[in-house]
Amino acid sequence: MGQVDLKKIEHAVTLILEAIGEDPSREGLLDTPKRVAKMYEEVFSGLNEDPAEHFKTIFGEKHEELVLVKDISFFSMCEHHLVPFFGQAHVAYIPKGGKVTGLSKLARAVEAVAKRPQLQERITSSIADSIVHSLEPYGVMVVVEAEHMCMTMRGVKKPGAKTVTSAVRGVFLKDEAARAEVLSLIKR
Amino acid sequence: MGQVDLKKIEHAVTLILEAIGEDPSREGLLDTPKRVAKMYEEVFSGLNEDPAEHFKTIFGEKHEELVLVKDISFFSMCEHHLVPFFGQAHVAYIPKGGKVTGLSKLARAVEAVAKRPQLQERITSSIADSIVHSLEPYGVMVVVEAEHMCMTMRGVKKPGAKTVTSAVRGVFLKDEAARAEVLSLIKR
Ligand SMILES: Nc1nc2c([nH]c(=O)n2[C@@H]2O[C@H](COP(=O)(O)OP(=O)(O)OP(=O)(O)O)[C@@H](O)[C@H]2O)c(=O)[nH]1
Ligand SMILES: Nc1nc2c([nH]c(=O)n2[C@@H]2O[C@H](COP(=O)(O)OP(=O)(O)OP(=O)(O)O)[C@@H](O)[C@H]2O)c(=O)[nH]1
Repeated sequence: MGQVDLKKIEHAVTLILEAIGEDPSREGLLDTPKRVAKMYEEVFSGLNEDPAEHFKTIFGEKHEELVLVKDISFFSMCEHHLVPFFGQAHVAYIPKGGKVTGLSKLARAVEAVAKRPQLQERITSSIADSIVHSLEPYGVMVVVEAEHMCMTMRGVKKPGAKTVTSAVRGVFLKDEAARAEVLSLIKR
Repeated sequence: MGQVDLKKIEHAVTLILEAIGEDPSREGLLDTPKRVAKMYEEVFSGLNEDPAEHFKTIFGEKHEELVLVKDISFFSMCEHHLVPFFGQAHVAYIPKGGKVTGLSKLARAVEAVAKRPQLQERITSSIADSIVHSLEPYGVMVVVEAEHMCMTMRGVKKPGAKTVTSAVRGVFLKDEAARAEVLSLIKR
């Protein structure tokens, strides 16, 4: 936050309203530039946030088995069309050497990477990588399922189409059974 | 279409990317201004379209009972935040004097009014009014159910919240039983 130039966005939104043939001075649109600027400040607030900063909270807990936080709802903005895409992220890891983080921190990391112009693939891999770097666990697996408004409301127009992406690190790479277990826990 | 100033939108989108602290020249964003401009041309293509023009197709069919086209999916853009809202429209009317229109024309009218910066209430009443003016039926009832991304992804953040609006004209105004019948047919 704080680094967003609200006035510049307001000006740009007025240009867009003019360009589509609207009247920016009609009552319903009078405050639109201000609202859109405030909204962009909010939905792009993760742009300068490092997801890894949330993993500073580490408990020296000797749990070296699966931790899965599933169904983390997120909303992001497609960097190609600046329209929303949204769905659920599922984050699994196997801690090593007592490096267990707070559960909410996994959700905060998802939020941090979602709140910027994004690709679903990049959300998925950057969450996995920041966990690898911060917690140095035995393994990490991130699955993201999302609906892209740019595919439903325009262009190819396929409402209901879902995109699923995954990122796999560490022991999950070689351990097919462990991957299958996570996928089945996500589905339940 | 045709009246949208694509270059002006492209310029505005570049301003927005700069204003949020992004680098418009990074690879993923290079074509974003062009894509957004093309997208706005598409999603705002109903701006100069009169929904009533679709009701010129009239069959002299002597059916003076209920016609309901339900579950017409639509996507629109909230005029306050320029983010999508979407859902289903249900359009019912009772034709008079053989003024029966094509079923797809009811869906086309929904599309025409949805493809502009909108309020859900205005979508609902303008569909009803254009049917009244074009077909002069015994009655019209329009129900719209939608989810507003401006209420789910930002601000008050209530994913799943649905807004329902209705517009009632003619005989439906005094006939409670007829209204109840339409609502029950929509629900089935
Ligand atoms: N891999 C990937 N592709 C994405 C994401 N978001 C997104 O818009 N895309 C895709 O980016 C591509 C952009 O293609 P394009 O440069 O031809 O732009 P366009 O708007 O004309 O494409 P379209 O009309 O097919 O959507 C589209 O295929 C779109 O579906 C994402 O998160 N991951
Ligand atoms: N009646 C109605 N209200 C709408 C529609 N679309 C839409 O954004 N609104 C509402 O318009 C209002 C705009 O309020 P505001 O000027 O305080 O703007 P804001 O972004 O700060 O409001 P918010 O953060 O509460 O959403 C919000 O309450 C929003 O929910 C609509 O189609 N019909």
